Amino acid sequence: MEVTKTLARYIVQSRREEVPADVRHEAARALLNWCGCAIGASRHETINNMLAAVLPFAGQPQAQILGRNERTDCLHAALVNGVSSHVFDFDDTHAKAIHPSAPVYPALLALSEWKGISGADLVHAFVVGVETECRVGLSVFPEHYAIGWHITGTAGVFGAAAAIGKLLGLNEQQMAWALGIAATQSSGLREMFGSMCKSLHPGRASQNGLMAAMLASQNFTSSEQGIEAKRGFGRVMSTKFDPSIITADWGKRWELSSNMYKPFACGLVVQGTIDGCIQLRNENGLTPEMIDSVDLKVSPIVFELTAKENPQTGLEGKFSVFHAAAVALHTGMAGEAQFSDESVLNTVTVALRKRVRIERDESIGRVQSLITIKLKDGRTLERHVIHALGTLERPMSDADLEAKFRGLADGILTKKQADEVIRLCWTVETLPDAGAIARAAAA
Amino acid sequence: MEVTKTLARYIVQSRREEVPADVRHEAARALLNWCGCAIGASRHETINNMLAAVLPFAGQPQAQILGRNERTDCLHAALVNGVSSHVFDFDDTHAKAIHPSAPVYPALLALSEWKGISGADLVHAFVVGVETECRVGLSVFPEHYAIGWHITGTAGVFGAAAAIGKLLGLNEQQMAWALGIAATQSSGLREMFGSMCKSLHPGRASQNGLMAAMLASQNFTSSEQGIEAKRGFGRVMSTKFDPSIITADWGKRWELSSNMYKPFACGLVVQGTIDGCIQLRNENGLTPEMIDSVDLKVSPIVFELTAKENPQTGLEGKFSVFHAAAVALHTGMAGEAQFSDESVLNTVTVALRKRVRIERDESIGRVQSLITIKLKDGRTLERHVIHALGTLERPMSDADLEAKFRGLADGILTKKQADEVIRLCWTVETLPDAGAIARAAAA
Repeated sequence: MEVTKTLARYIVQSRREEVPADVRHEAARALLNWCGCAIGASRHETINNMLAAVLPFAGQPQAQILGRNERTDCLHAALVNGVSSHVFDFDDTHAKAIHPSAPVYPALLALSEWKGISGADLVHAFVVGVETECRVGLSVFPEHYAIGWHITGTAGVFGAAAAIGKLLGLNEQQMAWALGIAATQSSGLREMFGSMCKSLHPGRASQNGLMAAMLASQNFTSSEQGIEAKRGFGRVMSTKFDPSIITADWGKRWELSSNMYKPFACGLVVQGTIDGCIQLRNENGLTPEMIDSVDLKVSPIVFELTAKENPQTGLEGKFSVFHAAAVALHTGMAGEAQFSDESVLNTVTVALRKRVRIERDESIGRVQSLITIKLKDGRTLERHVIHALGTLERPMSDADLEAKFRGLADGILTKKQADEVIRLCWTVETLPDAGAIARAAAA
Repeated sequence: MEVTKTLARYIVQSRREEVPADVRHEAARALLNWCGCAIGASRHETINNMLAAVLPFAGQPQAQILGRNERTDCLHAALVNGVSSHVFDFDDTHAKAIHPSAPVYPALLALSEWKGISGADLVHAFVVGVETECRVGLSVFPEHYAIGWHITGTAGVFGAAAAIGKLLGLNEQQMAWALGIAATQSSGLREMFGSMCKSLHPGRASQNGLMAAMLASQNFTSSEQGIEAKRGFGRVMSTKFDPSIITADWGKRWELSSNMYKPFACGLVVQGTIDGCIQLRNENGLTPEMIDSVDLKVSPIVFELTAKENPQTGLEGKFSVFHAAAVALHTGMAGEAQFSDESVLNTVTVALRKRVRIERDESIGRVQSLITIKLKDGRTLERHVIHALGTLERPMSDADLEAKFRGLADGILTKKQADEVIRLCWTVETLPDAGAIARAAAA
């Protein structure tokens, strides 16, 4: 089965008209969410350090670094914007595996600025790129991830190559080469989680995928069986490889329809707790001094990942379900600002945090939570969150995504700029030049 | 065992004075050989196509593309020179595993041009880089290679990171990060052999290693157990991993002492045949019309890899022991020019090729050959090549390496330029600015 060549043919033959309207709207939602993440982390130490290292090598100012004033060549813009969009771990998540936008949109937006690509073509290329990376990822999932590969990097590079290859109008032969050049650059180890290198992975995937497609467009050759060969991606980098997943039902189901957006700026397993706490707070007008105790029944995985009782920094706060519950009840929010050092040390939040207890319950799902709040007036409030906000069963609304974007852009873009980026994202398919989005996101 | 941190400490603490003179001279030999390979392939389609793809993104003219007139930023120069040095498969080979120079020298020379590094420091950094990449490679060899990884790419990135990190003066913490950033970019599939992507691997390794060290110098963090962790390089990318190989006898044995240089521009298994044919030709003043028949007893692997009887292109000629023997007897040479399309179709060579026969002999080693030539005057000449020229037992002399360089540079550099590059390579340790070598190698 010639998977690489078949996939290349599907990508080349894909027509925009075949993509359903709801899938194209999902691309706009992903774009707004991705822009917010990239802008929000654009002043982070990770980005400052990276720019200090790579700016001496950057070329012509073809593309914007989002949220900043630097412009670089497309390859470096794809790298840096790819990194920034993953720094907060706040970017989108495909239902089963990968963070789809971070490897694909940075390359696409950079090329759009340089070549003047229409928003309609950008959206179509993004859909094709996501389809490619998710299918390649799913063909080796979960064994590939279990071995230690960071699938957002390893599969993401295929997405960027496919998306850029589509925009460049590669023929089938060239597209197979682009996928092969992507395959032979596929990398990213889970050992890097907890360091700046975790975010390097989608950045490199975006940059390397862009270069793969550029090389193929100039007839730089690779194997035409880069994915399925004995010594190709699937068999070298995984103990399980099912190539049929890559091509089955192409054009019938759309992986982008399984895309999720996190409402809260921390790990998945705490989202249900935060969601329920905010619901109870808002419905009952709770203030910290009204609350006697907070009892959470949670999945055992919460104990493994986020049971830090006494966090001292913002980053530690992300791994503390105690802080997450307290700050959600105190402020009604759980954006990046609620996981700052300052927020974690806020005396009101800290006092409330000490009244939060957790109990292991095997029957509670990993994104679920059963919350019981005892009030000082004797009342007891309870909320069982089965489908947390942001899951496929209860997706964030367009308005939720706008609010999330505003929270991330706050202090970096002006309100007027934020309005403009939001407007451009919602109308992306009408834009004659999608690069306008990147330019609007300059500091 | 904290292998990554220990290795980082060894690299940081290494002092030039500890490197024996013969090892430092080997670095000069490797430099001359590497320069020749990079210059020789600098006009190849692989390089033309790559430059067409990446030049639009290149930055300031910090570093020279060898054998051409383009100058680019260091990252792109490391990439392109790394690719060109492997295109002919004519670069050096470590006794057990890797092609050591192609991932390391391109990054080093680029940085030298940009920062004005002395030749003595360049040589020291190269020795440390080769030590690093060979030890990391040997820790997973041969299983890692057998799975399908192209070890020149996957281990080479560590060599470039270590060498550049040494030049940048990283501290131990930063060096461990540089090795981790290298680990998480390690890639390159053997499936790409036979396509332009094979040469992409050392180029990317050089470029990625350079960036790894630059990032680490700006405190871009990674895991400090990138090599040995459960989800680090060794265990994710190989079924066998022996970390003790990486640090054992550091500073006592030198991997560069096991470096080999190919005299002839084709695969290893044909080198013995060519060597013996040239010896017999030169000793006996043979011309094609004197020769009645040529019988070769060769290893079975020769049948597997290079038994093409009727090659029609230069590339096919590299996989034809018949052409190799004939062209060696006809011209007394087997450089890149003897594997051109023209040379493969030369009527005299073709006529002689048809009088070459091969016989499988299990007792003949893979780089050996037993040659029997019957002359029309009735004489029989025989030569059993046990240690082919270029093996560790019979290394190419400095003069041989000069001749090889001249053959590769011919038609690209003037004779005067070639003389100057040769002079600079032999005196590299006295140069105040090693970048002079790259500038002398401009077209």
